[in-house]
Amino acid sequence: MKAGILGYGNLGRGVEAAIARAEDIELVAVYTRRDPASLTIATGTAEVKSASALEGGKEDIDVLIICGGSATDLPEMTPKYAQWYNVVDSFDTHANIPIHFGSVDAAAQKGGRVGLISCGWDPGMFSLNRLYATAILPGGHDYTFWGKGVSQGHSDAIRRIDGVEDARQYTIPVEAAVERVRNGENPEFTTREKHTRECFVVAKDGADKAGIEEEIKTMPNYFADYDTTVHFITAEEMKRDHSGLPHGGSVIYSGETGANGNRHVIEYSLKLDSNPEFTGAVLTAYARAIVRLNKEGVTGGKTVFDIAPAYLSPLSGDELRAHYL
Amino acid sequence: MKAGILGYGNLGRGVEAAIARAEDIELVAVYTRRDPASLTIATGTAEVKSASALEGGKEDIDVLIICGGSATDLPEMTPKYAQWYNVVDSFDTHANIPIHFGSVDAAAQKGGRVGLISCGWDPGMFSLNRLYATAILPGGHDYTFWGKGVSQGHSDAIRRIDGVEDARQYTIPVEAAVERVRNGENPEFTTREKHTRECFVVAKDGADKAGIEEEIKTMPNYFADYDTTVHFITAEEMKRDHSGLPHGGSVIYSGETGANGNRHVIEYSLKLDSNPEFTGAVLTAYARAIVRLNKEGVTGGKTVFDIAPAYLSPLSGDELRAHYL
Repeated sequence: MKAGILGYGNLGRGVEAAIARAEDIELVAVYTRRDPASLTIATGTAEVKSASALEGGKEDIDVLIICGGSATDLPEMTPKYAQWYNVVDSFDTHANIPIHFGSVDAAAQKGGRVGLISCGWDPGMFSLNRLYATAILPGGHDYTFWGKGVSQGHSDAIRRIDGVEDARQYTIPVEAAVERVRNGENPEFTTREKHTRECFVVAKDGADKAGIEEEIKTMPNYFADYDTTVHFITAEEMKRDHSGLPHGGSVIYSGETGANGNRHVIEYSLKLDSNPEFTGAVLTAYARAIVRLNKEGVTGGKTVFDIAPAYLSPLSGDELRAHYL
Repeated sequence: MKAGILGYGNLGRGVEAAIARAEDIELVAVYTRRDPASLTIATGTAEVKSASALEGGKEDIDVLIICGGSATDLPEMTPKYAQWYNVVDSFDTHANIPIHFGSVDAAAQKGGRVGLISCGWDPGMFSLNRLYATAILPGGHDYTFWGKGVSQGHSDAIRRIDGVEDARQYTIPVEAAVERVRNGENPEFTTREKHTRECFVVAKDGADKAGIEEEIKTMPNYFADYDTTVHFITAEEMKRDHSGLPHGGSVIYSGETGANGNRHVIEYSLKLDSNPEFTGAVLTAYARAIVRLNKEGVTGGKTVFDIAPAYLSPLSGDELRAHYL
């Protein structure tokens, strides 16, 4: 199975790392909108090519894993390339999923390809667990907690503040809230009750630290609705203690059965050392699945909901039934 | 969608309770090998019929949910009825799954039906989580812990001991072992290190309690390899404190990505007030799925690995993408 990666940021490198561990997938090329000569990739056997090489569907790849941003890249890229290639993306702007799905579906149908959107862990594995749980226990309550982990959007928001040189923001679930949900209490939470935000900031020389802290804590949407703590640290401490991109979280669903309301709690949780590498690993497994489905004649837009789990694994049905059932 | 249930023990009643909460499924009949007149069921609108009514495929049902035992009932029943009806079972003798699958597949192919085997939570939801995890993070380690919950097989084994009137056995995971796995240590455990067994026993008048305790603790396969505690209680205490059938457990998978071995831990856990009602709810969701698949022309033997999650839910693809992705 031959794969290409479009885009070589954190996620692109995460996909590359996952393909390196997949015995049945070969990375053929990384495609970039930058000058290919400016890029050095980890896979010695793969080429670096201009994204323009993908035009017209001439590249000899079974699947293209598109590693762009949800705001502007993916709404344009995924439908464009779905007419020529089987594609997977990690589109995560929840409100725009129906529109994005529609345009990818139309392009993939037209081209006889499969376009799978919104893959990763949320959306992705967390979505699957919300769906499985509600299908088994209809009428229950689902809760999603994120963290402890680095939110890149929130870190970027802090970096845009005057006087800030670097910043890292951790989203942290409130343990007492998680416990209440685990106990099947079905509580209603305010935003503040579910998560806290912890910020590590490197200030520029002579910057107004009190002003920066105030600006962070009152920032609408990002921080104002949360209990936020701000720590000023040195650039060396930032590099030493906060260079990773850990993340995780949990989906907890509680529902009932029977006339007497027997209660059941289903919990799915992730503890990830590297958010982009885990996300890349999920995208790679689904890339395998859609290549196999397309070979069977399946076409059109898909999400993780539409993929039977067996397609994700390189093992045969016999092997899966014997060892994993 | 019209459903039938074959067998009206704990699991059959659990399926009935799940169908009562499924707006798109109607329970048409409970089929029994006993005298139908001897059975009173909870669903006023459903009939009780002899299992012989199912012969030849004459019953007007879309799916038959077979609630029999794995030792002798299901190996005979599931292939037999798969030639006439879409069927779901909860076959859980792991070593015999390949043979059982083969015979159900052949019968279902011949009859143009779908036969889904080994559904429930283990095998079932736990199997799915083992598969998803290993497909995403190949080469990792998976651990399954069961409990705290009632093991009916172990309870029955105690009841067969001379002088025992009633018994209930709880399987309990060793919390320290669970923690080591959660920390990604990939430990190797002996049987004794993973689970303990706690037994509540009502002894007959004048029975030799010390002898009973010794016989339990040294019973091969069931107890000899575990740290086992035995409590003698009264029949009233048994009824008051141990009449439920709670269960649960967790599948924990730890694997790596990247050249530096970033570690990721995936955990799926269940805390169930009623084992048979939750299992019945899983069987009911999969019954919905195979009816829909069969209408699309799919036939043959299936397991949970072969079913795309969207088929489990009565919601449309648009609704699922908008609200669960």
